[in-house]
Amino acid sequence: MSISSMVVDQYRGKEVTFIAQILQTAVNKDIISFAGGLPNPISFPQEALKESANRIIDTYGSSAFQYSNTEGLKALREFEADKLNKKLGLHLDAENVVITTGSQQSMDIIPKLFINPGDGIIVENPSYLGALQAFDYYRPTYYPVDLHEDGLDLEQLEEALQHDNVKFAYLIPEFQNPTGISYTNENRAEITKLLKKYNCLVIEDDPYGELRFEGEHGIYVGLGQYEKSALLGTFSKSVTPGMRLGYIVSEDKELLRYYAAVKENSDLHTNIFAQYLIWDYMTHNDHQKHIDEIVDLYRSQANAMLQAMEKYFPEGTTFTHPDGGMFIWATLPEGMKSLDLFPKAVEKLVAFVPGDPFYVHPENVRTMRLNFTNASPEMIDEGIHRLGDLIKEEMK
Amino acid sequence: MSISSMVVDQYRGKEVTFIAQILQTAVNKDIISFAGGLPNPISFPQEALKESANRIIDTYGSSAFQYSNTEGLKALREFEADKLNKKLGLHLDAENVVITTGSQQSMDIIPKLFINPGDGIIVENPSYLGALQAFDYYRPTYYPVDLHEDGLDLEQLEEALQHDNVKFAYLIPEFQNPTGISYTNENRAEITKLLKKYNCLVIEDDPYGELRFEGEHGIYVGLGQYEKSALLGTFSKSVTPGMRLGYIVSEDKELLRYYAAVKENSDLHTNIFAQYLIWDYMTHNDHQKHIDEIVDLYRSQANAMLQAMEKYFPEGTTFTHPDGGMFIWATLPEGMKSLDLFPKAVEKLVAFVPGDPFYVHPENVRTMRLNFTNASPEMIDEGIHRLGDLIKEEMK
Repeated sequence: MSISSMVVDQYRGKEVTFIAQILQTAVNKDIISFAGGLPNPISFPQEALKESANRIIDTYGSSAFQYSNTEGLKALREFEADKLNKKLGLHLDAENVVITTGSQQSMDIIPKLFINPGDGIIVENPSYLGALQAFDYYRPTYYPVDLHEDGLDLEQLEEALQHDNVKFAYLIPEFQNPTGISYTNENRAEITKLLKKYNCLVIEDDPYGELRFEGEHGIYVGLGQYEKSALLGTFSKSVTPGMRLGYIVSEDKELLRYYAAVKENSDLHTNIFAQYLIWDYMTHNDHQKHIDEIVDLYRSQANAMLQAMEKYFPEGTTFTHPDGGMFIWATLPEGMKSLDLFPKAVEKLVAFVPGDPFYVHPENVRTMRLNFTNASPEMIDEGIHRLGDLIKEEMK
Repeated sequence: MSISSMVVDQYRGKEVTFIAQILQTAVNKDIISFAGGLPNPISFPQEALKESANRIIDTYGSSAFQYSNTEGLKALREFEADKLNKKLGLHLDAENVVITTGSQQSMDIIPKLFINPGDGIIVENPSYLGALQAFDYYRPTYYPVDLHEDGLDLEQLEEALQHDNVKFAYLIPEFQNPTGISYTNENRAEITKLLKKYNCLVIEDDPYGELRFEGEHGIYVGLGQYEKSALLGTFSKSVTPGMRLGYIVSEDKELLRYYAAVKENSDLHTNIFAQYLIWDYMTHNDHQKHIDEIVDLYRSQANAMLQAMEKYFPEGTTFTHPDGGMFIWATLPEGMKSLDLFPKAVEKLVAFVPGDPFYVHPENVRTMRLNFTNASPEMIDEGIHRLGDLIKEEMK
């Protein structure tokens, strides 16, 4: 019996994931790639992290190298609790926070904890493909709710919430991945009302919240508004993704005790050196100043991409105008398909992620995700120029 | 609906795991604890790791902080492949190795890939509780095979292999956890024959293989003998567990491609800073010399525990005599139960892990796991003295 015939149905034939395929195609160094979701490496505070690495080894010695507890470093959990307390006037403590091996870990643990085959998950349509791909294993019934410029479609959401088998909603209200859309506060308040009405657990993912070009972070649909919720955060976008460090926060400590019990089976605990490192970095540096610098950088890159799109994209091509985050979501003229365009774009040495894997039921997908954080304004102009020319050619 | 009523059956009521409970009980600083499985912190090469941390930041800069690929750092994968090639005369390359977030990650990914509810897993009886606990979620049918002083019970193994639903065998032939037993090479050779005869995938876990006090590492039942196999290794016992760095090696590259696709859903990739760090450390230091020092330390601790057991344990109490690893497995006199003894031992300020969670079907368990690596010979003598006195009291 071959290995492939032995694997469970959910993985049969999925030796290589869609993301891996896309990234492989775009690995050519000459390609201008808007496909990834990588922070700009300029944004990593390397020298400060090096100082922290030396300081924590000198100060904490073997504790930074030994096995540790599943919930995570207490000082780091308290740091995150305090930050949210100050921001939201809450009374969280360390037991309201579990450190995760990247936010991605929650995409596996949450459905593992709650989903029997057929149970319902409410997701945005489109939603983060890394979440959908991880959820898929658990064979849920998806209830996709359309995302508009102002946020979730409330009628569709209420309809979805009426299904008895719904276990949780997974939402990214701030600089959504893939669209870059932020729900309005009015939209969020209505969502919270509906979640309460139907007593539905909400997992609110906020990886990009700190990366805001203008205005203020929207209200959370869960944390501080409604106890049956959990907030996912990460240090990947504001410090370093390579450390794989995220966290889950909830007012419901029982939820986090269950979470930790499941996490123990996956990795025992998150890298403790990394936890000391990030905690030391956060408490010894002006982190807000660092974020301001990243935001300035990303704002200029986003503007470069938007200006280039205005200039080079033909009529009939639309795109979102995010106030932060890392992505712009473009829609091709009617009749075109993003998946068809992709290989032609790669031939012209420019790459994006076709919208398809972000939908539960992709069909004639005209959308694409474009990342603006990992190329210079000049390269962005050149890449969008190439893409615009290609779209024009295809329209002929 | 409360959270506990929402979780899937496999986790219902398992807010706190057995391990977590045991460790909580034994957290009192005055307790002499043989309960953990912690390497001795003296064994962490802190200064060398500090040098490596500085060197990799200076040399690789942002690459050590950026997102990375799921399979792991190519240089580290090649390093492990080369090491095994030299040892076993194989021709492995980077594609035969995937870096894991601790070996524990495989305890979740392997069953996730292969087990539908009811599918069979062959395990040693007793086996590593962290594996059983992780496997449990996938609702397998276990086929436990008794472990004797010389290795697996071959008749029971063949019987188990005859079940059509068996997907893999999970074995720890070298310094088994919890028993400290190493299978003889004769026993291993017979196991390989049986695995081949029934064409059964074997997952061979070897976390303690480097920690040998005397003699040589036994032959692998899988790697180099039989292609349908995977070997699990770790840097936790010989460098640092806090980094959560392990690996899976297989001659079957298809198996590893599937593995990586599943891993992507769990954590995208393993901490890349840690991968650079361990690779740099391994290639800039005399690692064998470091291991020799750990082995000298652990040998003296194991001897201290064995001598104390001879001295203080009453007749009727038996125990294994490991040639390496971190654990001794003791069996109480007939009629006694380890779980009953545990709270009394904690009262006398000495702790161990009762044997119960290491069995698929625990019943009147008289065994216990004792770790010898994390206490001085004097403390070991004192702790075993207390435990011996307690057993004698209980026999009255």
